[in-house]
Amino acid sequence: IVDAGIGYGKAGDTTFNGVVSGPYSAPRIGFKGSEDLGGGLKAEFALEQGFSIDTGAPASATRQFHRQAWVGLSGDFGSVGLGRQYAPGYNYSLKFSQAVPGATFNSQAFLTNSIPGASIQPGTDARWDNSITYKLPKMGAFSAEAIYSFQTAESGDDRGQDDKMGVAAAYAAGPVTVGAIYHNSRRAKDNLKEIYLGGTMDFGVAKLSASYQTAKENGVVDAQVAYLGVVVPVGKGKIHADIGRLSDDENADNDSTSLSLAYTYGLSKRTTVYVMANRTTNDDNAARGVLATDDGAASTSLAAGLRHTF
Amino acid sequence: IVDAGIGYGKAGDTTFNGVVSGPYSAPRIGFKGSEDLGGGLKAEFALEQGFSIDTGAPASATRQFHRQAWVGLSGDFGSVGLGRQYAPGYNYSLKFSQAVPGATFNSQAFLTNSIPGASIQPGTDARWDNSITYKLPKMGAFSAEAIYSFQTAESGDDRGQDDKMGVAAAYAAGPVTVGAIYHNSRRAKDNLKEIYLGGTMDFGVAKLSASYQTAKENGVVDAQVAYLGVVVPVGKGKIHADIGRLSDDENADNDSTSLSLAYTYGLSKRTTVYVMANRTTNDDNAARGVLATDDGAASTSLAAGLRHTF
Amino acid sequence: IVDAGIGYGKAGDTTFNGVVSGPYSAPRIGFKGSEDLGGGLKAEFALEQGFSIDTGAPASATRQFHRQAWVGLSGDFGSVGLGRQYAPGYNYSLKFSQAVPGATFNSQAFLTNSIPGASIQPGTDARWDNSITYKLPKMGAFSAEAIYSFQTAESGDDRGQDDKMGVAAAYAAGPVTVGAIYHNSRRAKDNLKEIYLGGTMDFGVAKLSASYQTAKENGVVDAQVAYLGVVVPVGKGKIHADIGRLSDDENADNDSTSLSLAYTYGLSKRTTVYVMANRTTNDDNAARGVLATDDGAASTSLAAGLRHTF
Repeated sequence: IVDAGIGYGKAGDTTFNGVVSGPYSAPRIGFKGSEDLGGGLKAEFALEQGFSIDTGAPASATRQFHRQAWVGLSGDFGSVGLGRQYAPGYNYSLKFSQAVPGATFNSQAFLTNSIPGASIQPGTDARWDNSITYKLPKMGAFSAEAIYSFQTAESGDDRGQDDKMGVAAAYAAGPVTVGAIYHNSRRAKDNLKEIYLGGTMDFGVAKLSASYQTAKENGVVDAQVAYLGVVVPVGKGKIHADIGRLSDDENADNDSTSLSLAYTYGLSKRTTVYVMANRTTNDDNAARGVLATDDGAASTSLAAGLRHTF
Repeated sequence: IVDAGIGYGKAGDTTFNGVVSGPYSAPRIGFKGSEDLGGGLKAEFALEQGFSIDTGAPASATRQFHRQAWVGLSGDFGSVGLGRQYAPGYNYSLKFSQAVPGATFNSQAFLTNSIPGASIQPGTDARWDNSITYKLPKMGAFSAEAIYSFQTAESGDDRGQDDKMGVAAAYAAGPVTVGAIYHNSRRAKDNLKEIYLGGTMDFGVAKLSASYQTAKENGVVDAQVAYLGVVVPVGKGKIHADIGRLSDDENADNDSTSLSLAYTYGLSKRTTVYVMANRTTNDDNAARGVLATDDGAASTSLAAGLRHTF
Repeated sequence: IVDAGIGYGKAGDTTFNGVVSGPYSAPRIGFKGSEDLGGGLKAEFALEQGFSIDTGAPASATRQFHRQAWVGLSGDFGSVGLGRQYAPGYNYSLKFSQAVPGATFNSQAFLTNSIPGASIQPGTDARWDNSITYKLPKMGAFSAEAIYSFQTAESGDDRGQDDKMGVAAAYAAGPVTVGAIYHNSRRAKDNLKEIYLGGTMDFGVAKLSASYQTAKENGVVDAQVAYLGVVVPVGKGKIHADIGRLSDDENADNDSTSLSLAYTYGLSKRTTVYVMANRTTNDDNAARGVLATDDGAASTSLAAGLRHTF
């Protein structure tokens, strides 16, 4: 996937103009494969790398396959994977909080990403090193998965000081799908506990998305993120809108409200042009925004671009 | 492309012997693609990475796709690209200053590359981050392109403190092709302004190349580079020769003259063996040379190697 | 190749549990190719990169193609290569010291790798930058190769202060193959000289491997590594066992003895599951082990995993 846009942002005295990498989808390349071993058993792997198309820089200075790097087996028992993998908070939040596409302009994604260590969102913190995953086999409308991450792979205790775990499940009933996620990450002071509930309802003329999540680490953060979004297909294009609200009970004057709008138009199955806009208002001590931020100031961002998948 | 040679260099008290990466063509790998969107419209992208074949090190420690990383659209209107792209000074100087092939032994390439920030040459400074390019559609003998680079992609002014722009055009009339390039780069003290004029004439038994360029940044550099080269096909091989002269009106005793000779022989369309030689003479304060340099001393360099494209 | 396992290690007060990258084979991807130039002549190249599947990190922070990066010609005269290449100590020690597979649990590999700079083993120190290699053409049962590495590619002397050279040869007679390797590496204080003798004997029901090697650098190390291993095929699986002994005549109380066991089972030609175990005992000043080490303490390591080649 390659994706680049021209962007403009303004927040207080800060302005931005320039080329933006991946407003729609973060640019990435990689290798995936599977081998049929007979008896329903399959060997699978994925190696995926992210990069910034504006400068050609890798998404991570230290990880070659920053997005994914794992090998596993799947069969009647479900599937097991070993390596650097997506946590359930990545796979399942994408189901219920993606009215405006991507991780850049999406209100749930960039608000949650602003909480240190929060991992129920489609950003970097949702990919875990040294992890074991287990996914249930396909069972009609119900799906579930779990992960355990030996974050630094070395420890003298039973459980490492920065190990993480997560579980998620979803259930589909006609046009309605609902799901829940729980992540528990060892952090410097205490455990960061995250809970997420989400759902979508597809009316045909429009698809609604809604989610509510909490992230609590004693003495550090006690945040809630509420999200509501809608996608309306219009011919070959789609109109996307969402609103998100982050409130923090631990830190004073740290709340933000984000409103995003987007229009995407498919030139083909593989090539999409788009425009996106965001307006974020901040409490006095908050500085959230998409392309420009300033303490306590409202932030406005615009981008227009082209995404091509290969 | 993979390319490696054995090299020897001597300048004053400094000598070099060892394996040289890419004397003919800098080693690179990458991905390119285009998709036909109908109505003459095409989506295009390129991701290209350079590396040193002598050590396996990447060409840039911080950029994954150091050479190119962009996505764009082309059609009847011409073509537009977004990302890290070649400036016109790369694409057009290759037309008129490439008698001796490559960026290592070519006299125009290594002399111009020695001017800090100079970008009308086939080296790293001719690839610009965060850039927008526009190329005219094919119009018979005339071609032209332009680029604007938001170099750091962030600014409080209308134009960023290190933004860059460039334009170039070329015209072909029978065996003669002529062209011109202009680059303007914001630098720490002042703008660096570069002008380039070049032409080739193909006699069949030999092809002549000539160029003249200036690079001026107030108080830093005021340089001219003159270049003359010739390529003579001899059976399956080619003899290449060029001479370059850099003179600097801003800094005293900083002029250099470079003379290069090369013989290339194609074992196949994809595999070429070659020998190259360079002799550079320097003023007292200049230290230019291909494989070895020493203040004020003349530099002699030799290499023999193998290039294979895939 | 992707390879990951779950591992546990204990040595004195240190324990390890987590995901292990590449206990069987170090994960890698790359590009290889050759072109037939006619008359028996071929152009060849290889670019190969290693990475850790537990974190997605590259095997080397500074080298893109950390494992191999070279271009060469082969023909009736043998083959010549230029670039970053495997030394003979890599290619030939794999023939005679690989009863337990890989570089992680294999006794010869991890014991020899603990000697600073020792390069007759299948680890990183056996890949040399800026090198020229020559391999004899296939001549029945006899094979040989040599390498010279301009380690930093720059020098004022005839031979660089950290240049390296190596030669190796092997001879096969029926079920028996024997070989010898010699490496000489310039080091800070003195040259590090390494000698290796090895052999295998294939009885059909079992294959024996044995090797003996020395590594001597005046005032730094004077070590011997003895190795004995056996592989027994059992249906679609194989039982592997080896024992290694490192003794150091330069440093007191620095000897170690390693015993490894492994069982590998091929789910297909491309996918293998395995379990591996190691027990290493150390002198008072030695701290060798596979997954956990502690001064003078014995180290126990276990791993189970999955390897998939593509």
